[in-house]
Amino acid sequence: MSLNEDIRAMGERARTAARALALLSTRRKNAILEAMAAELDARREALRSANAKDLAAGREAGLPAALLDRLALTDERCDAMSKGLRDIVALKDPVGGRISRWIRPNGLVIQKLRVPIGVIAIIYESRPNVTADAAGLCIKTANAVILRGGREALASNLAIAEALQAGGANRGLPEGAIQLVATPDRDAVRALVQLEGLVDLVIPRGGEGLIRAVTEQARVPVIKHYKGVCHTYVDASADPAMALDICENAKCQRPGVCNAMETLLVHADVAAAFLPALAQRLRARGVELRGDAEARRHVPDLTPATEEDWAAEYLDLILAVRVVPDVRAAVAHIHRYGSGHSEAIVAASEAACRVFTQEVDAAAVYVNASTRFTDGAEFGMGAEIGISTDKLHARGPMGLEEMTSYKYVVQGAGQTRS
Amino acid sequence: MSLNEDIRAMGERARTAARALALLSTRRKNAILEAMAAELDARREALRSANAKDLAAGREAGLPAALLDRLALTDERCDAMSKGLRDIVALKDPVGGRISRWIRPNGLVIQKLRVPIGVIAIIYESRPNVTADAAGLCIKTANAVILRGGREALASNLAIAEALQAGGANRGLPEGAIQLVATPDRDAVRALVQLEGLVDLVIPRGGEGLIRAVTEQARVPVIKHYKGVCHTYVDASADPAMALDICENAKCQRPGVCNAMETLLVHADVAAAFLPALAQRLRARGVELRGDAEARRHVPDLTPATEEDWAAEYLDLILAVRVVPDVRAAVAHIHRYGSGHSEAIVAASEAACRVFTQEVDAAAVYVNASTRFTDGAEFGMGAEIGISTDKLHARGPMGLEEMTSYKYVVQGAGQTRS
Repeated sequence: MSLNEDIRAMGERARTAARALALLSTRRKNAILEAMAAELDARREALRSANAKDLAAGREAGLPAALLDRLALTDERCDAMSKGLRDIVALKDPVGGRISRWIRPNGLVIQKLRVPIGVIAIIYESRPNVTADAAGLCIKTANAVILRGGREALASNLAIAEALQAGGANRGLPEGAIQLVATPDRDAVRALVQLEGLVDLVIPRGGEGLIRAVTEQARVPVIKHYKGVCHTYVDASADPAMALDICENAKCQRPGVCNAMETLLVHADVAAAFLPALAQRLRARGVELRGDAEARRHVPDLTPATEEDWAAEYLDLILAVRVVPDVRAAVAHIHRYGSGHSEAIVAASEAACRVFTQEVDAAAVYVNASTRFTDGAEFGMGAEIGISTDKLHARGPMGLEEMTSYKYVVQGAGQTRS
Repeated sequence: MSLNEDIRAMGERARTAARALALLSTRRKNAILEAMAAELDARREALRSANAKDLAAGREAGLPAALLDRLALTDERCDAMSKGLRDIVALKDPVGGRISRWIRPNGLVIQKLRVPIGVIAIIYESRPNVTADAAGLCIKTANAVILRGGREALASNLAIAEALQAGGANRGLPEGAIQLVATPDRDAVRALVQLEGLVDLVIPRGGEGLIRAVTEQARVPVIKHYKGVCHTYVDASADPAMALDICENAKCQRPGVCNAMETLLVHADVAAAFLPALAQRLRARGVELRGDAEARRHVPDLTPATEEDWAAEYLDLILAVRVVPDVRAAVAHIHRYGSGHSEAIVAASEAACRVFTQEVDAAAVYVNASTRFTDGAEFGMGAEIGISTDKLHARGPMGLEEMTSYKYVVQGAGQTRS
């Protein structure tokens, strides 16, 4: 079979599996998830040895240390994979839930019910644990999943997927519900994201290059988990101590993630007092600050910020700093350079907070809190499949509910339309 | 400027307008809609004369009579356009509404609020009234709109768009909130649907060719308003009189629309009694029936149905008829040939209804009612921008709520993540 035929056959198996999955009870799905976790545990040695092959090949190919680190399946990460599946068991199953119900004047009873989306393709990069996490979330929501991980993790991903399939099959997981694209050929991604009628949704998870390639090729809906160029705006009315704490947390607590702060905007009236204190605090944590001319007046040894800095997602201990005349200028900066992910204001002024929360167009807008809270678990949704920077279907943390669609079930007594 | 630059400039104007629109009160938007309606009325003669040019050019070009009919702006249709805008005034404004609110253990107050999607591109075919309808729905939901109608209706669409812009501007409609692509060049559509970051959603409305072309070219999210291959399944337990009424209504009440029945499935146990009665009833309404071998045993003069008939969206007084052994065979047929639009069962058996409503994967699933009810107004949503056969974001009738996104506004008191 050609590659295209192979991928289409996977799509057809997934569609058939999705129909069967949609009819499973919550109890049955939970039993499957438990069995998947147990099988991962039972095959620990096989996973470690498959991973050792990927790591050896990666070292041979000269992969950078950071990538090798992401690739490694330590015992701790193996534990986390099976624990992750067991955590999903405890989450509320959204499928079958009633979103609303109303009765029309002609007596028709309309129910809007949550149903699975159907078949979800997940395209991701080097971390092999995504294989288990994504499959678990899909099975809980009765979506069939086609996984396509990074080529450097192929042996690890295959070992994980086989464990999930074998464990699930023991408890009635339909054949084809979890599939992994086993070829490293890039054309497989193109074929997969063009499977109209067979794949209902594509979720790319990874760097900008991956997401752009998927978006350009896709003919089925895509939800993008795109970059986070997150801002914190410190208003003239801000409590300075609170502002320092929030900025330090947003920048330093975990700088390599999408909800970390990348640019600080400071009201001109408090820049002289705030910026030197901030520089002292963040430099003690190893942060490099890059400022505009006005910021550099207050902290003379700042690196000058360039146009590229305003658009940068550093994912590192670097912070761009700009002084703005007021909250509207902060909003304008955010609309020009932000990625619609998470934006925060620190202010005591209710008027400033109202302008900021009403006008900033982002998935999550914070008042007096760190942007680091944009996360499914922190929002109380449990696990998440990612954080959407799109505005259609799901925005912000995408948990189990966001992995469902709905249908209308209309009960009549012979009504016809006149 | 090149075509691409022109279209990008439209996108940028729309993005700016969308930010201004998002801040307008419901009262202001309603005043704008009233003024748009008034201006359409005031410019009736100009609209009629622009339309006369389109009609003359269309006749010259030999357009078919049905297309010329869709193109014509009669006085009645002009009345309907301005009435449509005034009807939208009366609908509830979803923007700003709170979808949910909860408090986290750390004290963060999370609100999920409805916001406009942003910029919506609507690509449609010959009916010029779509220009006013779509613009009205977008303005009510504070979305900027870029309209691209059929080339044969260009003069009419321009006249309508100018009236809407001029009327709206009198009451504060932001410049760029309603724009019409004024070139008939097809490359304009390609440029428009690839405006990542400027266009948030594309809605193609029209035939299969249009929708396929948009889907293939798009790099921004698309919601498809695709074909309706709708089925009615008459179970062995059906009340025969109710089944005849529902079938007649679903096929004949308005055969040219997407929620009309295209295929009838009949349980084998009642085919001998039901099909001759149905043939008599529908033939009296001018319907041609095409049946499988089993159906033709009961109504000997049926046209034989071919494989193409099962997949056909006739949009005409033609009905495909198939005899099935049971409800599961009906479901399997629907999954193979249906378009996920509207599907009905006529049955007294609760077991059969449960199987049908649980297993059929379609936007609307009816029990003992006509598929013709899949419609925003019939569902009680007011007007609709279309009927989605997609499963992401909106499924089934897409009313004002479905034309919104949401954002999370999170109120803290200095919380940081540990």
